[in-house]
Amino acid sequence: MSKDIVKPSTLPGFLELLPKDQILFNEIKDIIRNTYEKHGFIPIDTPLIEKSEILLAKGGGETEKQIYRFTKGDTDMALRFDLTVPLARYVAQHFSELTFPFRRYHIGKVYRGEKSQRGRFREFYQCDVDIIGNGKLNVIYDAEILSIIYCTFKNLGFENFTIKINNRKILNGFFSSLGITNSVEVLRAIDKLEKIGEKGVIDELINLGLSRDAVTKILKFIQIRGNDEEKLQSLKSLNIESQIFQEGIKELITVTDYTKIFGVPEKNYTIDLTIARGLDYYTGTVYETFLDDYPEIGSVCSGGRYENLAEYYTTQKLPGVGVSIGLTRLFYQLKEAGLLENDTPSTFTKVLIIPMDESFNGYAIKIANTLRENNIISEVYFEDAKIGKKLNYANNLNIPYTIFIGDEEVKNQKASLKDMKSGFQALITVDDVIKTVK
Amino acid sequence: MSKDIVKPSTLPGFLELLPKDQILFNEIKDIIRNTYEKHGFIPIDTPLIEKSEILLAKGGGETEKQIYRFTKGDTDMALRFDLTVPLARYVAQHFSELTFPFRRYHIGKVYRGEKSQRGRFREFYQCDVDIIGNGKLNVIYDAEILSIIYCTFKNLGFENFTIKINNRKILNGFFSSLGITNSVEVLRAIDKLEKIGEKGVIDELINLGLSRDAVTKILKFIQIRGNDEEKLQSLKSLNIESQIFQEGIKELITVTDYTKIFGVPEKNYTIDLTIARGLDYYTGTVYETFLDDYPEIGSVCSGGRYENLAEYYTTQKLPGVGVSIGLTRLFYQLKEAGLLENDTPSTFTKVLIIPMDESFNGYAIKIANTLRENNIISEVYFEDAKIGKKLNYANNLNIPYTIFIGDEEVKNQKASLKDMKSGFQALITVDDVIKTVK
Repeated sequence: MSKDIVKPSTLPGFLELLPKDQILFNEIKDIIRNTYEKHGFIPIDTPLIEKSEILLAKGGGETEKQIYRFTKGDTDMALRFDLTVPLARYVAQHFSELTFPFRRYHIGKVYRGEKSQRGRFREFYQCDVDIIGNGKLNVIYDAEILSIIYCTFKNLGFENFTIKINNRKILNGFFSSLGITNSVEVLRAIDKLEKIGEKGVIDELINLGLSRDAVTKILKFIQIRGNDEEKLQSLKSLNIESQIFQEGIKELITVTDYTKIFGVPEKNYTIDLTIARGLDYYTGTVYETFLDDYPEIGSVCSGGRYENLAEYYTTQKLPGVGVSIGLTRLFYQLKEAGLLENDTPSTFTKVLIIPMDESFNGYAIKIANTLRENNIISEVYFEDAKIGKKLNYANNLNIPYTIFIGDEEVKNQKASLKDMKSGFQALITVDDVIKTVK
Repeated sequence: MSKDIVKPSTLPGFLELLPKDQILFNEIKDIIRNTYEKHGFIPIDTPLIEKSEILLAKGGGETEKQIYRFTKGDTDMALRFDLTVPLARYVAQHFSELTFPFRRYHIGKVYRGEKSQRGRFREFYQCDVDIIGNGKLNVIYDAEILSIIYCTFKNLGFENFTIKINNRKILNGFFSSLGITNSVEVLRAIDKLEKIGEKGVIDELINLGLSRDAVTKILKFIQIRGNDEEKLQSLKSLNIESQIFQEGIKELITVTDYTKIFGVPEKNYTIDLTIARGLDYYTGTVYETFLDDYPEIGSVCSGGRYENLAEYYTTQKLPGVGVSIGLTRLFYQLKEAGLLENDTPSTFTKVLIIPMDESFNGYAIKIANTLRENNIISEVYFEDAKIGKKLNYANNLNIPYTIFIGDEEVKNQKASLKDMKSGFQALITVDDVIKTVK
């Protein structure tokens, strides 16, 4: 019977990795997870599909266009497009069963039907960490979140990265002192400084109906320079008569003071008054993280403080602070930048045991079991094949050691261990195999 | 501004866990993952959404009715309903870049729009492990897969479980010797023995057009009793003139012989000639796993050998063998059976550090950093609250230790460690804290 073959392929915008890269990807994901857990964050795992009314409660904007929405039976449902909306729904739904401050992390896939382009994915992992308060949440937690960004990238092996922080209250207070009421649009325009340059921002601000005078003040404001202390000094000396502005400065001082106490080196964070995070969502501290040697990658970890996480699902006031790493995009970009080039193996196996023929299988299995008991990942090659093919298996997967089992090995109750890199080979006891491989 | 509140809820059939259960669930998932990895299996992580033509290439049956299928733009796509079809597509697509035998594991969510009922889920985790050969695959791997089922349930803490095995060739050969051509339907009927009893099976077989004589022989066959050796002996003594039947016996002997060599205790596996796995998919060894003390749960790990994994996506012949654990259902059922009742904490945090007021925060953070460096998960409680509320936080989350920081602790450069269970408290050095907690 001849069958129709369907050409095997994945949908565009959906990343799929070969084993070598998958192992590396998982390693990175594990480091992030372990860092979050080490700081006392609790995992949650919410359904990928939610009711559309939940996901679209806030509504508007890009979200509605990009969402994967469908019906089954009478039910209108959709795939989550971030992990924040599910968190809001989770906390509102299980409010009485949670303990606050609720420290949760969530690593999972999210879906956005964006225009397909290089480095943009329709399915991608987000690694979120948030602290949610009941009614209130101390601003010190904003510094703790910054310290967690630091620990995460440090644990991932990065040295040169900068966590840029700002406080939305400073911007909002400053704007209100200028009589600006459409601060969201103004923030969006300012946020584009790196992308469209000073001239571009000026044009956008004028288009928003701001006076030349106000635009000049804004530019002066966002171009405050110096180290963190000098920036804070410059801000104070502006003498802005706005309570919200003064609150923002106070919070920023607390956050930078505590960041130091948390042990984050000064070279890894800085106040940047141009960071606004163009969403109306954030209300206090905002973060963006850049790899110093790869600024073109953009922010690799962003987030901030929000006043009211779950306002669409509960009347409880739930302020919070958190950040997110877009892991799929980060992985793709690190790879593009050549940062992940190394000789990681395509398997976890450390020792491949090769019986010379079927009669040696029993002894081979015994050795594999012993090695595993000693936490050495090992496998036996059972296929009937020429020795060259068996060695190719080890070479292709980059397995560091092979063991040959034949007459002599069984007779001496030993094993012929071969270091696949150096080619060095020796007939040794299983105990010595364990010592050598470890 | 008063807002419309959307009642926070999840879709029916979608399991969501509270932190305490989530931590336990992840622990189980990690044990399965670690067991698979320890045996040299490689992780893959395929998109949750595939082209509908891929997922429905085989077509027919329940699958098409249960699948979550939708369109976005011109694209017809669907959520995967198992991990086997994505594996087949993956291996066919990346064939030239993989090394065979390809040992892969995959732990991920799958989706089936089944009728909603207790213990049935529409989103659930599957934990799959398979070995795929290129053209051929030694039957010894069937025994290895059995040994991996054993190790997995052993590592999960089970002692009393039985892996039942059979070989489809024995059944198929037996049927062909009886002139039965609709063996798939006959197998489906036999598979229901436990559910509908002997009388029910007889009725179904008669309905399928079998003679009374054939039905009698079938019942005699599937009621062969004794230990594994006796069963094999009974099978041989049937003197069935069918090559495929003899092949099946030979394979079953090899699998049981090697299962012993792999070190699986005899009490944990047995030949059961009634196990057929009602799918036409399997062609050799089949497995089902039962918890001896909870037979009502049904099989907790099933699978088998298949001749041709990816026939819908490639002309390459890819035989394989593997099993799957339906983790979400298993977790739910173990919980229902009261097997997961324990005092697992609702957090990973081992030590909660409580500064008596804000002036002690710095010292508290220093201690938290030191504990973390020593792999003790700890957090500082920064909220301004009465001491009772702070202790409640530790009690609610079941955190085993708290540390109080006040004047005396800072002056002496020590910490007041309290064992939350015994209530015992002492002013000790941070080094002693580390020793005590570890």
